[in-house]
Amino acid sequence: MEIDMALQTIELGDIGRDIRILDQTLLPFRIEYRELSTWQDAAEAIKVMRVRGAPLIGATAACGMALAVRSDPSDAAMFKAADGLRETRPTAVNLQWAVERCLSILACTPPDDRIKAAWVEAASIIGEDRAANRAIGEFGMPLIKALADPLDGEPVRILTHCNAGWLATTHLGTATAPIYLAHEAGVPVHVLVDETRPRSQGAALTAWELERAGVPCDVIADNAGGLLMQRGQVHLVITGADRVAANGDVCNKIGTYLKALAARESGVPFCVSVPTSTIDPAMPDGSSIPIEDRGADEVLHATGMDLDGTIRTVRTAAEGVSAINPAFDVTPAEMVSTLITERGLIKPEHAGRIVE
Amino acid sequence: MEIDMALQTIELGDIGRDIRILDQTLLPFRIEYRELSTWQDAAEAIKVMRVRGAPLIGATAACGMALAVRSDPSDAAMFKAADGLRETRPTAVNLQWAVERCLSILACTPPDDRIKAAWVEAASIIGEDRAANRAIGEFGMPLIKALADPLDGEPVRILTHCNAGWLATTHLGTATAPIYLAHEAGVPVHVLVDETRPRSQGAALTAWELERAGVPCDVIADNAGGLLMQRGQVHLVITGADRVAANGDVCNKIGTYLKALAARESGVPFCVSVPTSTIDPAMPDGSSIPIEDRGADEVLHATGMDLDGTIRTVRTAAEGVSAINPAFDVTPAEMVSTLITERGLIKPEHAGRIVE
Repeated sequence: MEIDMALQTIELGDIGRDIRILDQTLLPFRIEYRELSTWQDAAEAIKVMRVRGAPLIGATAACGMALAVRSDPSDAAMFKAADGLRETRPTAVNLQWAVERCLSILACTPPDDRIKAAWVEAASIIGEDRAANRAIGEFGMPLIKALADPLDGEPVRILTHCNAGWLATTHLGTATAPIYLAHEAGVPVHVLVDETRPRSQGAALTAWELERAGVPCDVIADNAGGLLMQRGQVHLVITGADRVAANGDVCNKIGTYLKALAARESGVPFCVSVPTSTIDPAMPDGSSIPIEDRGADEVLHATGMDLDGTIRTVRTAAEGVSAINPAFDVTPAEMVSTLITERGLIKPEHAGRIVE
Repeated sequence: MEIDMALQTIELGDIGRDIRILDQTLLPFRIEYRELSTWQDAAEAIKVMRVRGAPLIGATAACGMALAVRSDPSDAAMFKAADGLRETRPTAVNLQWAVERCLSILACTPPDDRIKAAWVEAASIIGEDRAANRAIGEFGMPLIKALADPLDGEPVRILTHCNAGWLATTHLGTATAPIYLAHEAGVPVHVLVDETRPRSQGAALTAWELERAGVPCDVIADNAGGLLMQRGQVHLVITGADRVAANGDVCNKIGTYLKALAARESGVPFCVSVPTSTIDPAMPDGSSIPIEDRGADEVLHATGMDLDGTIRTVRTAAEGVSAINPAFDVTPAEMVSTLITERGLIKPEHAGRIVE
């Protein structure tokens, strides 16, 4: 595998030690790790997006629970931390899922044993995510291979939105896992990476990831995918998701829905890669999924590296101009060709059933 | 009219004088005019987008022809300038239209009289554009008014993409003319302004224009329009166009097509405001319209104002990452509800007929 595995998005370490995260707000310009010493550190890291991506948010929340019981294993402190972690971001269900899973173990564990139990549970969540990433890759890769066969050596052109790569998870990513395995197997691929404004996770994170792994890719403006699909220059769309409703509606980074519309119009398959922990059987359809509003500043500014090597944020609009910034949207299940999960390829309308 | 008319996008002045343009590459941060002394100055201004927007590109090209015959009224020099101007940008038909129109007059004019004839022609093109802007506004405003009536004082929420405002023309804009007239008439409107990456003409130009005129607006990421339409938070889309084919296919800034798909899906009317000079009867449909490729740099960078008041360009992607940047796309005629022209509201499928 050519992915640079010297980098881990999160490092749990020995029981009771601090936890390290790769600070993604500095990427791709600086590689810096941060120690998380308290659950509040974990909550802050999730909130300001030092860690992001549904699976990694879940793993970080589990680590936050471990840090919480390390500092105070009482019920009161534990439930307070759980609430604090759950409130950081509303859309990704893995956050709720991981906190609930830790609580359900810890609530039945005597306070004195909670530190160890919490570390084991966080390690399990991370380990399962690693395995899920690999399985998603193995189930998804044949979809790419099948598209490659008639192309006679021309690359399969895959469009992706936002970052659902290894930076969003603990191993190979969700949307990217099939791409990495295809590349590793010698299937020619070329990835079209949506910039993904307003936070530019595509340009800053996904393109950097793929570039490091030697996977051919080009960044495109979020506006460009429709034209490229009309022109037949996209063979497949793969995105991740922050939450999948029981009916298969997919909530993912804002702009995903526009690409699904274009894919349907041009007959391009639209796949969504998720661990089954991202499926929320309690949510009957996408209309009730809470959509995080991240405030105007992200839309009115852009962050990058200046010519002199300084990371700077510049205001792209005139002073006094306002903005609105819903962070996710919902793609109806009928526009999704396939969910690529660690349990296999499933039709979106069966999403609820697979996790019952 | 509350638009600040102290600013003009282009100022022709007396016969034989230099021509002034508002340098839009510095907006919204600095208001600076530039003198155009040669046709090459005009070509450069079009090429690097100191002036942009189909009608203003046409007006500037006409001014470029006037400057060309001022410095050398010979046939050879005149045709060379025409070629040089035509080559600056491939997509907007107003550029070709304006150069052809000037040539057809100047070719029948003795060289000694060409300076005066060219100034008169450029002034005519500018004057006609001003009148067309106003007429587009008057034909389009009742569409907004009709949407306002059942809303009981709630604003009509209008989404626009890129800049088709007064900065793209010589007076009230194309897409914005109906909005300005509605606002002036006391119809409550709220404009959702697509940022319009990679050059951010929406955030930098349209939002600034509307803000100065006191029209309520919010910038949104290009990704957000789909969700807002799904939620019923957009009543109308109005964009401009760079070229309309005879069958009504609309070529406009990249990303327009994605919004048209979303508008159709949510039942939101999708209108395109154009002077009839933007309709190209020689282009049977949109598939043959040349799509300008503007190179990777725009996608990999963002420009804005730093905290210290300096205009800076920052790289938003990692070093070594590549990008592709098609600048326009084509929205099929069947997704366009109405063309708002200076000759009235027309069905897109009649576009070719109206200019025959």
